[in-house]
Amino acid sequence: MSKLDDFRAERQRMNEKIMNLDHLGVKRFFNLDTNTYRDGALDGKTKELLGLVASAVLRCNDCIDYHLEQCAKEGFTHAQIIDALNVALIVGGSIVIPHFRHAVATLEQLQQEGSLAG
Amino acid sequence: MSKLDDFRAERQRMNEKIMNLDHLGVKRFFNLDTNTYRDGALDGKTKELLGLVASAVLRCNDCIDYHLEQCAKEGFTHAQIIDALNVALIVGGSIVIPHFRHAVATLEQLQQEGSLAG
Amino acid sequence: MSKLDDFRAERQRMNEKIMNLDHLGVKRFFNLDTNTYRDGALDGKTKELLGLVASAVLRCNDCIDYHLEQCAKEGFTHAQIIDALNVALIVGGSIVIPHFRHAVATLEQLQQEGSLAG
Amino acid sequence: MSKLDDFRAERQRMNEKIMNLDHLGVKRFFNLDTNTYRDGALDGKTKELLGLVASAVLRCNDCIDYHLEQCAKEGFTHAQIIDALNVALIVGGSIVIPHFRHAVATLEQLQQEGSLAG
Amino acid sequence: MSKLDDFRAERQRMNEKIMNLDHLGVKRFFNLDTNTYRDGALDGKTKELLGLVASAVLRCNDCIDYHLEQCAKEGFTHAQIIDALNVALIVGGSIVIPHFRHAVATLEQLQQEGSLAG
Amino acid sequence: MSKLDDFRAERQRMNEKIMNLDHLGVKRFFNLDTNTYRDGALDGKTKELLGLVASAVLRCNDCIDYHLEQCAKEGFTHAQIIDALNVALIVGGSIVIPHFRHAVATLEQLQQEGSLAG
Repeated sequence: MSKLDDFRAERQRMNEKIMNLDHLGVKRFFNLDTNTYRDGALDGKTKELLGLVASAVLRCNDCIDYHLEQCAKEGFTHAQIIDALNVALIVGGSIVIPHFRHAVATLEQLQQEGSLAG
Repeated sequence: MSKLDDFRAERQRMNEKIMNLDHLGVKRFFNLDTNTYRDGALDGKTKELLGLVASAVLRCNDCIDYHLEQCAKEGFTHAQIIDALNVALIVGGSIVIPHFRHAVATLEQLQQEGSLAG
Repeated sequence: MSKLDDFRAERQRMNEKIMNLDHLGVKRFFNLDTNTYRDGALDGKTKELLGLVASAVLRCNDCIDYHLEQCAKEGFTHAQIIDALNVALIVGGSIVIPHFRHAVATLEQLQQEGSLAG
Repeated sequence: MSKLDDFRAERQRMNEKIMNLDHLGVKRFFNLDTNTYRDGALDGKTKELLGLVASAVLRCNDCIDYHLEQCAKEGFTHAQIIDALNVALIVGGSIVIPHFRHAVATLEQLQQEGSLAG
Repeated sequence: MSKLDDFRAERQRMNEKIMNLDHLGVKRFFNLDTNTYRDGALDGKTKELLGLVASAVLRCNDCIDYHLEQCAKEGFTHAQIIDALNVALIVGGSIVIPHFRHAVATLEQLQQEGSLAG
Repeated sequence: MSKLDDFRAERQRMNEKIMNLDHLGVKRFFNLDTNTYRDGALDGKTKELLGLVASAVLRCNDCIDYHLEQCAKEGFTHAQIIDALNVALIVGGSIVIPHFRHAVATLEQLQQEGSLAG
């Protein structure tokens, strides 16, 4: 199992535990979070890219991995994702570089799985 | 002169002073920053929206105002910009709310100037 | 009208505009945010204090003012609020000091209004 | 040895090294940090919960683990800790979710050790 | 009175109020903060520059103003301060630009007062 | 191979991949980042220390490790580096402590390699 598969499994396992906590506020927030990336005035595809850049400037590798996967599913190409990450790099500065490296490694795994266009 | 005009004038006045500092590194960064939002693998329009969301989750009102103006110029509608800011709100949480209020006030000024679609 | 009254009026005026945007996700988040500070496994009073400290370490003056008002309403004394802000100061460091100064000025206004115990 | 035990051992080992550096400023800060959570205008128990929420919105897993342990020692129940973390989630947004998952995993270990009430 | 004088007066007035709160932890932290910039293994002059860059990447204008003043007193030239702020700009990214503008305006005031070398 | 060697190898391997992405903006930023720490109005040695403190308050372990190595190469002693990290600790607060522990562990490895003075 790849590191990305580990992350996916662990993420799902823990999210299920969180749902089972039965805290109404937490459940509503998770639900709201999921709905945020549905089509609206902007299409869901664009919003996944916004989520990726937000995650990158806030420097959260788990969030970056999640949104990279969603961006790949939505059909963004490798070059487009790099161009989006470049915006994060310029806005967020060199402190973003370690997360840029992380993102490039994850993109490589998505390519190897065949789940990334371009 | 509106608050937004004040900001524009002050922003330009100070950016000129910064260029006149003649620090090569600073000049190159400002140049690189401008070029980031040119068409590339992603079109410039999409990248302005990415810049807006990055500015919102990092909670910088001046950066939000700048990117709101650019997003309006690129033709995003009021509803689309709100939908993008909603992504920032969910990613960044209630601490983003004061900046959401600021953004809505700026959007109102852009509407009054007639520079915002929709 | 005091600076605190200005803030209250502006905050309410803009929050109403945000509700009128009629963005379902934004409305749900605002609703969820309000409900967060209701009694639950922890009482609402304690949660207001948590909101204050979170706002202080994230360095948001508007959020600090809002939670200071709520903490005063819930009956926390001046000394208790300072003790909570001290936690924020130690966790967040000297970068929090300008916000500590802001909070002390707001507390003074709450005292002058007679809305703060102790 | 559990992951939590590893963290405890490593934390203590490194803190001792830091004390041995014999930097007066560093030692005073560590001392001040410890004293912050003693009873004062607020009781120490409440302040541990404030420390937890501050750690969560600032997204520091090691700090979260440390304060979870302290909150458990002080007698907070699992449900109360989750309710506090929910405040952090709403204030800090979805970027806090990976740290929420981390906290839930640590709480599970504290339960298995029998050091968590409720 | 210049904007910088206003800031100095307000800063001193509020710091005195904070000392008068008589919270031992807060007082110790303020004392520790002052001592941090005394000569040690590094001279105080270098540490003021470190304080400036830390303030700039954390994007706190009040902290930037305070450290700019200290850096000017310690004898750093305008060009050296700009070179330090450039490090902050590259590490912290374009989100630092509004604070860079703020710093350049403050440096101008320090020059007009005759308190900045070079 | 030590953990520090692993980090160095992985860092170089990924940076090469990033250069091979052939994104002009990314390449220019990496180039600009490298040039930032060259001698200018401030000498490169001082700027490496600024980079270290910026990395510490922004809480990025990879960036801390990189700048620790550069600071060691430039001839800063162990005591001087600790004094710089103490500035980061006071500015950034107890949330910096886990990164302080990380830095002390990396300094130990640099000492064992014989690449750190004092």
